[in-house]
This record gives sequence, structure tokens and C-alpha cells, in this order.
Amino acid sequence: MTEPAEISSLTLNRLSLYLRCLRQLQDAGTTHVSSGQFAQHFELSASLMRKDLAHFGEFGIRGTGYRVDDLAARLTTLLGLDRIHNLAVVGMGSLGSALARYLSFNDKPFRIVAAFDVDGRKVGHKIGHLVIHHSRDIPEVIPQTEAQIAVLSVPASAAQQCYEDLTVSGIEAVLNFAPTQLKQHPAVRTKSVDFQINLEELAYFLSS
Amino acid sequence: MTEPAEISSLTLNRLSLYLRCLRQLQDAGTTHVSSGQFAQHFELSASLMRKDLAHFGEFGIRGTGYRVDDLAARLTTLLGLDRIHNLAVVGMGSLGSALARYLSFNDKPFRIVAAFDVDGRKVGHKIGHLVIHHSRDIPEVIPQTEAQIAVLSVPASAAQQCYEDLTVSGIEAVLNFAPTQLKQHPAVRTKSVDFQINLEELAYFLSS
Repeated sequence: MTEPAEISSLTLNRLSLYLRCLRQLQDAGTTHVSSGQFAQHFELSASLMRKDLAHFGEFGIRGTGYRVDDLAARLTTLLGLDRIHNLAVVGMGSLGSALARYLSFNDKPFRIVAAFDVDGRKVGHKIGHLVIHHSRDIPEVIPQTEAQIAVLSVPASAAQQCYEDLTVSGIEAVLNFAPTQLKQHPAVRTKSVDFQINLEELAYFLSS
Repeated sequence: MTEPAEISSLTLNRLSLYLRCLRQLQDAGTTHVSSGQFAQHFELSASLMRKDLAHFGEFGIRGTGYRVDDLAARLTTLLGLDRIHNLAVVGMGSLGSALARYLSFNDKPFRIVAAFDVDGRKVGHKIGHLVIHHSRDIPEVIPQTEAQIAVLSVPASAAQQCYEDLTVSGIEAVLNFAPTQLKQHPAVRTKSVDFQINLEELAYFLSS
């Protein structure tokens, strides 16, 4: 089994999706599944799934399909979700707090190790066991934590400055929720979650 | 000016992005911009932008570029953002509440007209001026509102049932935040915002 140098973002996202579907099957007590059944149940493409998985070696058993536990475990390892990833959350407004709460659920491989805000009523207070620091202290605080990924949930006007502070502090990846076009640092993996643009797209199709 | 029958999702998302950038220029007091300046400032492709806009007729003035106010106004109309879109929010947990708060800001063309949850401590209470209804009443309540779009922010296990209730209630588009693969209704435009998958993608690249 040789791994390709770099998996595409689309393939990776599909692998995440397969894993999620497998976990649903585990919860339902299903132990074996064929690619055809799997694809039909979750409305996926069976051939694409077989192709995606074939990339990473022999997963299925010819004629029997996949052992659900096995495939889930192998995808978990492959995706690096068998270890903890430390996160910093910048912006503890209602969205940032909701994300922090969501991501702190125990079954997730993500752990929040630092939280930041500019609001004097929040700074110094705790969220769970974490003290909220002032965002201006990002360059000082981040290197003291093991945070590799930052979740950016600040207003658009503050996003670029926070992003730059994060990149100089050693953060390697940023998940941006601020509705703005960030000038990206080439060495920092950056993804934007832009639900406002998704909503505008839906609105367009209803108007037209 | 003839409009194409259907603009692709990618083109639409870029138009939303141009509009957002134009609003930043408006806020900064910029009145005119060339496609080259615009593209450079926001790290976009100038040629793609010219092509996208040329689709919809003559926007720019040769040699002078674009009048910011004009272009922003025309994109606003084109995207259907010059009128109010009524939303229902299903799932008033921390994420749903954060989304509701975010979307209720005055400058947005989205108005929340219905809210639902299954939690007895929330049902019957108000969020802003809206009473939170029980999710089982979606088929009864939605037709009494003018909601066209639903924001789905319920746990994965509840998402499919809510989605089906929404589609039979006359909802025409759904923005799904539940981390699950919905079996989609062909007549309902459905977009998923899946930040868990985005986060897993970032984690993968850090692990590898």
C-alpha cells in the first residue's frame, strides 16, 4: 500500500463523509455493508466510493463488501482523527461560543486549548476550564499552548489582523467564519465557512 | 442585456463575494475602482471578474473601471438581495441561536419569521419578538408564515425528519448545518454548511 503524495480536498471531504456514514451504521448495529448498499443508503456514488477507497489499498472483501468497524477504524487513522488536535478559538461572541461548545463534545478529536476575545466583559472570565484572553495577546499566548488550528469567529473588520497575529504565532491552519476575503498566508492552510454566501445563493434561486 | 437561463453556483458565489468586497470599498469611501485594482486588493482574478460581470451586460466604463455604488446596486438587484427573504430556523440550540442573532442584524436581507425547537424549556418562550414553536408543529406553523428558506441547526439524528417536515410545509430551500448526509428532495434547493468536514480536512493536512 503506497499513499499518494497529496489527496485532493474533494477526496478528503468524501472520506470524512464516508466515515460519518459508517458511524451511523455502527450506531444502528450494522456490521457489514456492500458498497452498493452503502451508496444507496446514503445517496452516494458506489463507483466513486470504491475508487476513493481503492486509492488507499484493499479495504473491502470481494463479494462480502466492507466490515463496518474495520473500515471506520482505517478511515479514522487515515484522516488523522485517531489523535487529538488542539484548537484556539478567536472571537467568543455567540457564534464562537456555539462553535466552542459544539467542538468540545467528547467524541470529537478536537480540543480547545485557548480562547480569545476583545470584549472586556469576557476577557479574564472562563469558558469551561479555559480563561478567555484578550485577542491582542494572541502572539504571546498561542506559543504557550499546543494549538495548531485556529477557529476565527470575529467580525469581518477584525479578521485580517487576527489572522496575521495567528500566523506569526505558529498556527498552521485556520478555519475562518468571518464573512470576509482574507489575504492568505501561503504557509497556513486556510478554509472559509461562508454561510452568508450559501444563503445568498439560495435566495437568488428563489427570486429568479 | 439577456440573462442566462441559470447561473452556476460557483459564479453566484463569486458575485456574492464581489458585492461584499464592493461594500468594503464603499465603507472606505472609494467611489471608483478598476478591475485590476479591485482584483489586486482582494486577491481575486481580474479576468475572471470581468468575465463574470460581462455575463450580465455592460458594467464597467472602459478606461475608468467601475463606479462602486453603481456596481454594488446592480449586483444587489441581480442577486435578489434588494428584497427581504423570510427564514425559519429549526433548532434553537447554541448554534441555531447564534445564527438567528447573526442573521437578524438589520443590514441583512434576511428576516426570521419562525423558530422551532423540541426542548420544552424553550418552546413557548420568545427569541426577540418570535415565539419558539415545537418542531413537531412545523407542518402547521410554516404555512402560516411567509418563510421560504429554512436554516436547519438540529442534531444529526433529528435532521432528516425535520427536513421532510419542512419540505411538505412548502419550504423551498434549506441551509443545513446538521452534520449528516440528508436525503434530498429534488424540488427543494439544499445546501449544507459542514464545518466539521472542513476541520477534519485541516487536521488531515497537519497530521500528514
